[in-house]
Amino acid sequence: MKKLRIGLIGYGFMGRAHSNAYRKVGNFFDFEHECVLQAACARDAAKAKDFARRWGYQSVETDWRKLILRDDIDLVDICVPNNLHAEIAIAAAKAGKMILCEKPLSMNTPEGRKMVAAVEKAKVPNMVWYNYRRVPAVTLAKQLIDEGRLGKIFHYRAKFLQDWTISADLPQGGAGLWRLDVKAAGSGVTGDLLAHCIDTALWLNGGIEKVNAMTETFIKQRKHTLTGKVEKVGIDDACAFLARFNNGSLATFESTRYARGHKALYTFEINGEHASIFWDLHDLHRLQYFDHRDQSIVRGWRSIHVSDGDQPYMNHWWVPGLQIGYEHSFVHQVADFIQGLESGKPAGPTFREALETQQVCDAVLKSAKSQRWEKVARAK
Amino acid sequence: MKKLRIGLIGYGFMGRAHSNAYRKVGNFFDFEHECVLQAACARDAAKAKDFARRWGYQSVETDWRKLILRDDIDLVDICVPNNLHAEIAIAAAKAGKMILCEKPLSMNTPEGRKMVAAVEKAKVPNMVWYNYRRVPAVTLAKQLIDEGRLGKIFHYRAKFLQDWTISADLPQGGAGLWRLDVKAAGSGVTGDLLAHCIDTALWLNGGIEKVNAMTETFIKQRKHTLTGKVEKVGIDDACAFLARFNNGSLATFESTRYARGHKALYTFEINGEHASIFWDLHDLHRLQYFDHRDQSIVRGWRSIHVSDGDQPYMNHWWVPGLQIGYEHSFVHQVADFIQGLESGKPAGPTFREALETQQVCDAVLKSAKSQRWEKVARAK
Amino acid sequence: MKKLRIGLIGYGFMGRAHSNAYRKVGNFFDFEHECVLQAACARDAAKAKDFARRWGYQSVETDWRKLILRDDIDLVDICVPNNLHAEIAIAAAKAGKMILCEKPLSMNTPEGRKMVAAVEKAKVPNMVWYNYRRVPAVTLAKQLIDEGRLGKIFHYRAKFLQDWTISADLPQGGAGLWRLDVKAAGSGVTGDLLAHCIDTALWLNGGIEKVNAMTETFIKQRKHTLTGKVEKVGIDDACAFLARFNNGSLATFESTRYARGHKALYTFEINGEHASIFWDLHDLHRLQYFDHRDQSIVRGWRSIHVSDGDQPYMNHWWVPGLQIGYEHSFVHQVADFIQGLESGKPAGPTFREALETQQVCDAVLKSAKSQRWEKVARAK
Amino acid sequence: MKKLRIGLIGYGFMGRAHSNAYRKVGNFFDFEHECVLQAACARDAAKAKDFARRWGYQSVETDWRKLILRDDIDLVDICVPNNLHAEIAIAAAKAGKMILCEKPLSMNTPEGRKMVAAVEKAKVPNMVWYNYRRVPAVTLAKQLIDEGRLGKIFHYRAKFLQDWTISADLPQGGAGLWRLDVKAAGSGVTGDLLAHCIDTALWLNGGIEKVNAMTETFIKQRKHTLTGKVEKVGIDDACAFLARFNNGSLATFESTRYARGHKALYTFEINGEHASIFWDLHDLHRLQYFDHRDQSIVRGWRSIHVSDGDQPYMNHWWVPGLQIGYEHSFVHQVADFIQGLESGKPAGPTFREALETQQVCDAVLKSAKSQRWEKVARAK
Repeated sequence: MKKLRIGLIGYGFMGRAHSNAYRKVGNFFDFEHECVLQAACARDAAKAKDFARRWGYQSVETDWRKLILRDDIDLVDICVPNNLHAEIAIAAAKAGKMILCEKPLSMNTPEGRKMVAAVEKAKVPNMVWYNYRRVPAVTLAKQLIDEGRLGKIFHYRAKFLQDWTISADLPQGGAGLWRLDVKAAGSGVTGDLLAHCIDTALWLNGGIEKVNAMTETFIKQRKHTLTGKVEKVGIDDACAFLARFNNGSLATFESTRYARGHKALYTFEINGEHASIFWDLHDLHRLQYFDHRDQSIVRGWRSIHVSDGDQPYMNHWWVPGLQIGYEHSFVHQVADFIQGLESGKPAGPTFREALETQQVCDAVLKSAKSQRWEKVARAK
Repeated sequence: MKKLRIGLIGYGFMGRAHSNAYRKVGNFFDFEHECVLQAACARDAAKAKDFARRWGYQSVETDWRKLILRDDIDLVDICVPNNLHAEIAIAAAKAGKMILCEKPLSMNTPEGRKMVAAVEKAKVPNMVWYNYRRVPAVTLAKQLIDEGRLGKIFHYRAKFLQDWTISADLPQGGAGLWRLDVKAAGSGVTGDLLAHCIDTALWLNGGIEKVNAMTETFIKQRKHTLTGKVEKVGIDDACAFLARFNNGSLATFESTRYARGHKALYTFEINGEHASIFWDLHDLHRLQYFDHRDQSIVRGWRSIHVSDGDQPYMNHWWVPGLQIGYEHSFVHQVADFIQGLESGKPAGPTFREALETQQVCDAVLKSAKSQRWEKVARAK
Repeated sequence: MKKLRIGLIGYGFMGRAHSNAYRKVGNFFDFEHECVLQAACARDAAKAKDFARRWGYQSVETDWRKLILRDDIDLVDICVPNNLHAEIAIAAAKAGKMILCEKPLSMNTPEGRKMVAAVEKAKVPNMVWYNYRRVPAVTLAKQLIDEGRLGKIFHYRAKFLQDWTISADLPQGGAGLWRLDVKAAGSGVTGDLLAHCIDTALWLNGGIEKVNAMTETFIKQRKHTLTGKVEKVGIDDACAFLARFNNGSLATFESTRYARGHKALYTFEINGEHASIFWDLHDLHRLQYFDHRDQSIVRGWRSIHVSDGDQPYMNHWWVPGLQIGYEHSFVHQVADFIQGLESGKPAGPTFREALETQQVCDAVLKSAKSQRWEKVARAK
Repeated sequence: MKKLRIGLIGYGFMGRAHSNAYRKVGNFFDFEHECVLQAACARDAAKAKDFARRWGYQSVETDWRKLILRDDIDLVDICVPNNLHAEIAIAAAKAGKMILCEKPLSMNTPEGRKMVAAVEKAKVPNMVWYNYRRVPAVTLAKQLIDEGRLGKIFHYRAKFLQDWTISADLPQGGAGLWRLDVKAAGSGVTGDLLAHCIDTALWLNGGIEKVNAMTETFIKQRKHTLTGKVEKVGIDDACAFLARFNNGSLATFESTRYARGHKALYTFEINGEHASIFWDLHDLHRLQYFDHRDQSIVRGWRSIHVSDGDQPYMNHWWVPGLQIGYEHSFVHQVADFIQGLESGKPAGPTFREALETQQVCDAVLKSAKSQRWEKVARAK
């Protein structure tokens, strides 16, 4: 077995999800590479040690600059707030490390371009953690579309609804709350949630030509955890946009953290000439499928319980009828990354592919300000 | 147009449902016969008049014996408590009237046999109001089974759950509550609710060979509305039974009025070699259908919105996607009755067919007492 | 009983739905007024007679101008294509008739203004058939909102999806297909489907300040039934728009006839500070409700089967658990109209209220052309 | 950290599920004990080594007798076919090992009694892998019942439906198919599937007094993988039974492997005086809950997405809205077992508790033969 020695930077929610994936992938998938949890890195030494002990990392670092220079690290995994992605990734690329970076790729398109340039110059394998592509039901959707079952696509609609920031008492900034701090996050729901919707959409339905957006910040000021002061909220609490894809289909996208009753309702629906598809993160193990070519008297939306061995990834898990969960999408992403290494066909989204999502996000935010349609910049 | 002059006996819930059906059928279906609301009959003259005025009956009677002897009545519709069915039906048959009788046919099998003998001797068209056969989704289920789509049947399961008698303060007997009075109803959930399940089952899956039942009366005594005294409750509050059909399939049936959260949850599911079917009265316009012959990766339960013109009865109503409701099953039953008259092929269930349901009910109640399997008597 | 003598113009889908409502309302509701089907009007005498016979109209007319001048007509019901609404309504108002007009009110705002002026000058009772307000689950939604259960509203999203015009072989124009002919319909999904969504939204969530829309005509040319020639399609096949309500909430609206799998999927969702509501025309008898004030461990979306006597309108129908259907919304609308007559508090939407929907539609179509945000004109 | 050194016997589906649980529990739960994968045991040395390598077991054995005598093993986990449970468990108890045994406990009640006697004499911690108790939604159901929210229980109904043995070409016996071989399995769906339903039921609703069952073997003969001959099928393909609980509630239970469309549809519903609960393994992360004490106009079944930190076990996993899957129930069971060790309050079901399930299974199979009600033996 070849070793794939991981150096993980950050120990939050994503740090846990990635660590779990590295630990599990070898139990369920067969590769030449074996993931080795080599080092965990966090500024707080005590927290780093505790995290390393819990997950089985063999060493700790408190300075990411040291981590990326270590000879015994093959792959750097970036799980820190968005404002740190670029600097770390560019340095890691220069150090010749493979890089897995949390989404969104960057704070904005220019920063993202530099990151793409860095990994491409260094020729290091790279990928961004848009994990929802690897939910089996979503991968099945991709397969059905690629087989041409839907025919010409007329409509795409996606939303990602949450309700966890409705209280005005919630502060911004700091551990767990950096997503509310524009300096750390770059944007609100656009980069955090719509980026997921856009990544999936680009993968399933091709490029987006132009967008027309509105955003809102319902709560204008929040106490900042780091400064202790009440500060202006710089992020978008909600964002909705119209879009036109290059293939002629029309789209609506919406995201908010002010939708009571929805914890993480990421849904998408695609309407084609012959068939339609619907998926919902709250029941991520199911795919809804309607095929107009079914005989008319028995035509209906099919609720497909994606747990059979012939459905994507599921031959690696349990038996039909027994569902997997959220965390498995990360295991699949690691598996695909390794598969890409071994096959020479890199798994996506690479930094370059993720830059396209960044460009859509930037066009969305620009449109929300300009109040008109904005074209999506072409990736360069 | 030929006139079909209706004489309705009883003005309760079913009196309303039937009257609505007679009034509507001609607006949506084309027949040579036209329903004429000739007379409404109830012991209380004021109530009879009020009912007649509201529904457009041209006259009233307070004595059913007079009604059935009137020359200007072609069809007698019996919508009174179960203990009155036999006497009225037998007299109406003797008077040469067509008869539509509310379900269950009779208080018990012997009574039912007399009723069958009477209508067959008089050669009068007759039918029992097991209306759920005429819900389009249920009729579609029948069609799919008859086409052989399910293959060999392994399992049948039905239940009818309600929750309206949980309070011990509810009295028994009298208007609206005669279903709790064993003298008027004959039995509890068995004759009231399971009879519906059994009628559908016999129609869809053929004869039942034997049954094994348990019953329970959770509230042992209730005040009687008519006597004013607290009296023993003679009906079954709940009944569940195992059954074996003649075709080798196994079945479970259950009914209760003590299932919180269910107002009228009549459901049935049929599992065949190739396909399965599920239906639920709470969403009566949908049929759930699973076909194992679908390609495996897109196999799933289909939720069929039964509202297209090529689905049973639906070409008579609105446009696809617009659902009909409970009351329409009665309109369809009248339509089928008239169609039977005009075509010479009587629509079921006739009294003779409904007697079979009675025989199953009797076997169920007998088994609950004997605590063992009981064979279902053969219809004679 | 006072008579309310109806003169109906048009005999299509809506002519049937309205006639059914007039015939049924008196069976289920108690009023001083009794609906009398006095005259049916259609240009084709044979069709008019056939329609009158089927529904029980006592006379026929072939010229609507004659109908509205008849002394024995109290109320004119306009069920003809949109391009005829204004002329008939204005003439009927001058003739002093009450008017019930199919939706949308008019071809455009200027025409609508004239109609409003006419009925207000003539002081005749008037209403537009936005029937979905009267689906019990929708009325319950209104009640919950008015009680303040949702708190501040953050989001409104509605869509109305169909799939019946995907085939390029479908012609435009003529009976049943006038909705595809811009000269008869004025617009496509905007006036036909989004108008319903807008009416409900204005009723539930107040006025709309501005909109930003895109439209598409997927099939550019269709054979015209009346001319026999292939002609340019002038209607919008699909329309989506962003909106901001006066109360600060954000909205997305979308409609299309190119969404495979959806026959008439009108849905709306409202997210408030404390609670959220969702409704779906395909299961119109249910309301989904989430209340954040429920104890957290048992918090969840409630699927409310709106069939209990204490829920809107349902005490007039059957018993709990037994659902009503699409057509009942029209019965309720007639009932509310009569209730308005008798109480002196007119039921909505009146012509004036429906004009507001027209103004939103016009702003939507204007925005689709201008490619920017458009303010909704204030009703005058 | 104290070490809990595991010796696992068997490497099939359950061997994987348990190994995964041991590996994960320490990443997500905090205990004094740390699971150490000490040895994996299987008769085939090559397979044992391969399994050990994949899961990280430090050594292998090919004879379970050796394994249980090793000093460096604290806990023996039995994941072999049912006919081997008793011998191994009794020997392991004598060797003073803690024991985790796959379900059902034993081939029958007498065997089970010996196992209980052995572990109780040896005073070794013991548990049986009825993992569904540890699905968070099921644990939440237990909590709601224990809080008295349901009030008096009237009804319990459970079913476990599969469809994987419908083909007559499927052989019996051998790896993966021993569940069809009565010599290895003891019974068919009764011990395999109904045992799960019964364990949950006893936990949630208390003891069962008596049962009345029917069983069926649809395919009478199958080729035997081990002998190569067509042999009589000795297991029950389907089993349904009526039951009465000690608390007066009525129950129906059903299981089959001949229900098309259901891969692993384990469902249960409990109807109480005040509230009802429903759960379904196909959407295991949801609990359906109806509370009659909700205000009537907004009363409905709540679909609770069990993923919040205040719901059972969920504070150990991700964030609200992100579901876990089947395998997590095993992690929870290990966590509870360790918690039991550390707290001195053993987690259930112990062998003694699991014996009660065995007694119900035996009564069910006895009733199917005797064709009458059978009392459930009291645990001794």
